[in-house]
Amino acid sequence: MGHGSGGKLSHELITSLFLRYFGNDKLNELTDSAIADLPECKLAFTTDSYVVDPVFFPGGNIGNLAISGTVNDLAVSGAVPLYLSASFIIEEGFDMEQLEEIVASMRDEAGRADIQIITGDTKVVRKGQCDKIFINTSGIGIIEKNAGHISGGKLAGPGDKIFVSGYLGDHAMAVLSARNELNISSNVTSDVAPLNQLIKSITNTGAIHYMRDITRGGLATILSELVQKRDFGVYILEKDIPMREEVLGFCELLGFDPLYLANEGKVMMVVDNEHAEEILYILRQHPLGKHAAVIGELVSEKPGRAVIESLTGGTRIINMLSGEQLPRIC
Amino acid sequence: MGHGSGGKLSHELITSLFLRYFGNDKLNELTDSAIADLPECKLAFTTDSYVVDPVFFPGGNIGNLAISGTVNDLAVSGAVPLYLSASFIIEEGFDMEQLEEIVASMRDEAGRADIQIITGDTKVVRKGQCDKIFINTSGIGIIEKNAGHISGGKLAGPGDKIFVSGYLGDHAMAVLSARNELNISSNVTSDVAPLNQLIKSITNTGAIHYMRDITRGGLATILSELVQKRDFGVYILEKDIPMREEVLGFCELLGFDPLYLANEGKVMMVVDNEHAEEILYILRQHPLGKHAAVIGELVSEKPGRAVIESLTGGTRIINMLSGEQLPRIC
Repeated sequence: MGHGSGGKLSHELITSLFLRYFGNDKLNELTDSAIADLPECKLAFTTDSYVVDPVFFPGGNIGNLAISGTVNDLAVSGAVPLYLSASFIIEEGFDMEQLEEIVASMRDEAGRADIQIITGDTKVVRKGQCDKIFINTSGIGIIEKNAGHISGGKLAGPGDKIFVSGYLGDHAMAVLSARNELNISSNVTSDVAPLNQLIKSITNTGAIHYMRDITRGGLATILSELVQKRDFGVYILEKDIPMREEVLGFCELLGFDPLYLANEGKVMMVVDNEHAEEILYILRQHPLGKHAAVIGELVSEKPGRAVIESLTGGTRIINMLSGEQLPRIC
Repeated sequence: MGHGSGGKLSHELITSLFLRYFGNDKLNELTDSAIADLPECKLAFTTDSYVVDPVFFPGGNIGNLAISGTVNDLAVSGAVPLYLSASFIIEEGFDMEQLEEIVASMRDEAGRADIQIITGDTKVVRKGQCDKIFINTSGIGIIEKNAGHISGGKLAGPGDKIFVSGYLGDHAMAVLSARNELNISSNVTSDVAPLNQLIKSITNTGAIHYMRDITRGGLATILSELVQKRDFGVYILEKDIPMREEVLGFCELLGFDPLYLANEGKVMMVVDNEHAEEILYILRQHPLGKHAAVIGELVSEKPGRAVIESLTGGTRIINMLSGEQLPRIC
């Protein structure tokens, strides 16, 4: 509890752990706010609280998830992520070695994403008042020239191709298999990864009309939101959606619809048709885009509707996730 | 649980509650990141997670606390607060009317502070996995010209006067009296308030050499940090510290040292001696600075030490809070 007091033990935790791993000229100042020089710009600002259960899962943990998730929210807005905050809510008695492992993986992921953690906060609550550890990261980035339109999706229109950057559902499966309650085991690891460098490789083509990272709510929710109040529809082909056999099998077994599975290192893009082949080529050069695929397109028929053609040729409408599929997936 | 799914119910909660209260042109876009135009500037960036227990206390609740606390972290850095993020972790079954009351008070406090909430996040965890509601707010602001030095305190030196902006300990007492366990009752209400306008009224004098809001760890911790590794000491007079009789009595009763009590609407300032009277005059014109007082000064004797002279004339050294006085005070 003393580590959350704001006094001496808090100070020790900050210097012996957080500064040791995250240290940089801005964070080291330990001022109430971090200070950074910025040029005149369009700033992107985002926040996410991470409550994933369990804290450690195959392929990652709550720490690198908290870095990647927020970096990806900036990147899909067409921003170059610059700085993150990190705020911890920790349950009294949480293992210090596990905390250090989480912090170390945050540092590593921040390095991969080429961003700095420049401000933070730690609260400790009594046993039973939170479940182990929750982490909030907020992020700021600068919108690149030629990328200002991506976030709103105003340029998206019929004929545009719909891309996903790789296999869907790996994160959801990895987290579920790490939960003892379901008694399933698998070799699938989470796809958690910062996508900013993959995304940067294609935003300057000017061909990206819209982008979203495919997290909670899955591909279905993003596609439903994309067509809401728009004068076009979405038509995708189930056969073209990249998914691992194992993830598909697991969905059948548990009755999950794979379209709603969460990912933490996958992006859905709407791409100008003329540049579709070029974009696919660039994406596949990148380790995080090797299995990128075109899964459908925007169509002028059925405006406001997202439709999927199944393996057997029938079609159905894709709706937003209703109710709740998997709690605490991120 | 469905409200945290990222799907339809999340969407409904966002539009029917968060947008209804916080709505503005940036938040309404509901993009992964909010986007704001910024001039070339020094940016201040800060974050805090709020876990106060109980969620409602005399004079405020976790919502306006989350706004004020983060606004104040920006303001004491010499920044004009511009934008906030708001991220909620909510326990399954938390009362919707209470949530609305919290959100409404966030809107009101944001209005008082003249800032906008432009991005957010909501997670819902199962019953027993968090204690009712935790809120993270992160904030960005622009450092004003002539205020760039405040945050680091580099200009602070012997002869400077130490100010506090009003009565100390009100927040701690209000929160404690709202906890049933201690069986105390009082009429004291929390001092939670956004201090940015009070602070703005004095930063352009150029006379403020250092500022901190007096939160967790209390005045003692701030003063200890101020003298750390510096070539001056602090000397304050207990008799000059503004405190309500009732708060003092309560400290005696419970054995608390008032120097360690948390506040959420009080600032400690180090002021150029030449401007001390002018600053005191300006502060006292403002409703939030009516009871501002000079409590001591920076001295060249005992460098690295903060010393207090008691009512009876004895002196003792002030140390950082060690251990933990009051958990979940903010």
